[in-house]
Amino acid sequence: MDELAPMRRKPTIRDVASVAGVSRTTVSRVVNGGRWVSPDARRAVETAIAATGFTANHHARSLATGRADSVAFLLTEPQHLLFSDPNFALLLRGAAAALAARGKTLVLLVAGTAAERTRVQEYVSAGHVDGVLLVSPHESDPLPASLRRAGVSTVSCGQLLGLPGEVPTVSIDEAASARAMTRHLLGQGHRRIAMIAGPVDTPGGRYRLEGFREALGNAFDPLLVEAGDYSFASGASAMTRLLGRDAGIDAVFAASDLMAAGALSALRQAGIRVPEDLAVAGFDDSGIAAAQEPPLTTMRQPWDRISETMVGMLLDVVDGVPRRPVILPTELVVRASA
Amino acid sequence: MDELAPMRRKPTIRDVASVAGVSRTTVSRVVNGGRWVSPDARRAVETAIAATGFTANHHARSLATGRADSVAFLLTEPQHLLFSDPNFALLLRGAAAALAARGKTLVLLVAGTAAERTRVQEYVSAGHVDGVLLVSPHESDPLPASLRRAGVSTVSCGQLLGLPGEVPTVSIDEAASARAMTRHLLGQGHRRIAMIAGPVDTPGGRYRLEGFREALGNAFDPLLVEAGDYSFASGASAMTRLLGRDAGIDAVFAASDLMAAGALSALRQAGIRVPEDLAVAGFDDSGIAAAQEPPLTTMRQPWDRISETMVGMLLDVVDGVPRRPVILPTELVVRASA
Repeated sequence: MDELAPMRRKPTIRDVASVAGVSRTTVSRVVNGGRWVSPDARRAVETAIAATGFTANHHARSLATGRADSVAFLLTEPQHLLFSDPNFALLLRGAAAALAARGKTLVLLVAGTAAERTRVQEYVSAGHVDGVLLVSPHESDPLPASLRRAGVSTVSCGQLLGLPGEVPTVSIDEAASARAMTRHLLGQGHRRIAMIAGPVDTPGGRYRLEGFREALGNAFDPLLVEAGDYSFASGASAMTRLLGRDAGIDAVFAASDLMAAGALSALRQAGIRVPEDLAVAGFDDSGIAAAQEPPLTTMRQPWDRISETMVGMLLDVVDGVPRRPVILPTELVVRASA
Repeated sequence: MDELAPMRRKPTIRDVASVAGVSRTTVSRVVNGGRWVSPDARRAVETAIAATGFTANHHARSLATGRADSVAFLLTEPQHLLFSDPNFALLLRGAAAALAARGKTLVLLVAGTAAERTRVQEYVSAGHVDGVLLVSPHESDPLPASLRRAGVSTVSCGQLLGLPGEVPTVSIDEAASARAMTRHLLGQGHRRIAMIAGPVDTPGGRYRLEGFREALGNAFDPLLVEAGDYSFASGASAMTRLLGRDAGIDAVFAASDLMAAGALSALRQAGIRVPEDLAVAGFDDSGIAAAQEPPLTTMRQPWDRISETMVGMLLDVVDGVPRRPVILPTELVVRASA
């Protein structure tokens, strides 16, 4: 065989075939176990694999076992939220730790646009990951259904509103958690309680509002509800709208800590004291809650258990072990704000 | 063929072989183009692929072309830095945009521990990505050399101290940028200028200090240099150590905005006014610079151009087009702090 110039790009099966002077089919056969190949052809292919540096064994192993030993953490939101919403960082950190403990690689994929969804669907369906941890899908997001059609092992964080019951989920009891927080505010003597709800096409948006309404019963006033998108800015502007509508509000319950932090900022600007003039409660206990001024009363989500349970569930599903939905407990954390 | 129960796990080539009643080698041959397979066997395999939902074409395409149409953004730092150091978010955002414009998928991989390095090396060598954008490797990190040995197409952000000249890089002129900032401080009349340097095993740590020393010439005093790890906390404690050592310091140049922000915090606690008593300069213009109180004078890195250039360079390298290192210009941004 001639001396080979070092290859600058990744060698492919075509390069191996060309160097060995055999067909690509023969290379595939060698790569896939070597049956039906003459000893001469096999030697030529093995020499060509060594000469080109083709990493045949991994492809072959993946083809034979269907395993990539990796799992996607798939965020179905615009990428910037990964950095601005602390919940995603908490989930990512926990999932990375849970996967590392099992010797698996975490691959972060973001599908916040239609083009990204198409590419992610192709990447995942091609077997580059064994399964998908689905984080924060909205009801109209077509990706969960198309992953399911492609037979991709999937576990969702939070209920999948668009595919109820069809994908194993790890979630909290959204409505019960919101009822508990609302009762806490009622128990503190508040009577005009507003809510900054999340997007109605997410379980946290829909069911936290439902729990709030249930707990208030006849005292529920739809004029005291504003929706945000879980962001700081949306919490601040929702708070400003609520203040403009009703000067008598004595408490506000935001469906995320980030929106509660935005509400605190709007109240500070309006010269309204928390908790003396108006109590503020959040949801998540995402790490920014304790750092607020005043520290936020909130509903703690068990982030580490959510990540750990999702990972264990997904690896079971990948192995063909059916799993039922898991609902994990939340905890009321009372700090200075409410 | 019998009715099949729906498969809950991802079907493998073994399942296809079992359903079709043929060997795995025969399935591989069909998947890889179908030569040397009898028409009957081919029909049986194709029916079994449809029945099991095996996604054979993608694996086969990957095996034939060696392309995954995806690129790894590989952070060789502990994962939490992805969220605490704004530079990484800027680079990630730019790389995602540049890849999206070219129809490629970005896969985020983190290799901050030895176990993560091993898994990432295996994942990348298995062809699940076409190449690697290497972000923030330290000199002793063995991963760049092992990726290179495995023939993985790689481009580095910043010089690779451990593999000088062996991997195409996109960087800035670290020493010249630091000289420019130091001269700005001298030009403002400062004479006792301290430096909070970065880690000496990174190009930003080593060459920014070199430029600082060059610009000061005989006025350079090694006692006025403290090193941090680019974090806020390390900047604050370095500033505190410097203040304890020399009460005459009239300016400090931090090798990152995050360390400069930490220095501002330490100065505030010590009751030292910026810039009246002591000027503070940063490096990066990472977005937190303008938001400091007072806003930071800093050296702007061209983040979008860095990401865009890295992506273009990597895709060239993947295609076998040799690329030379690129050095991009920085810009002095004068704000209130210095």
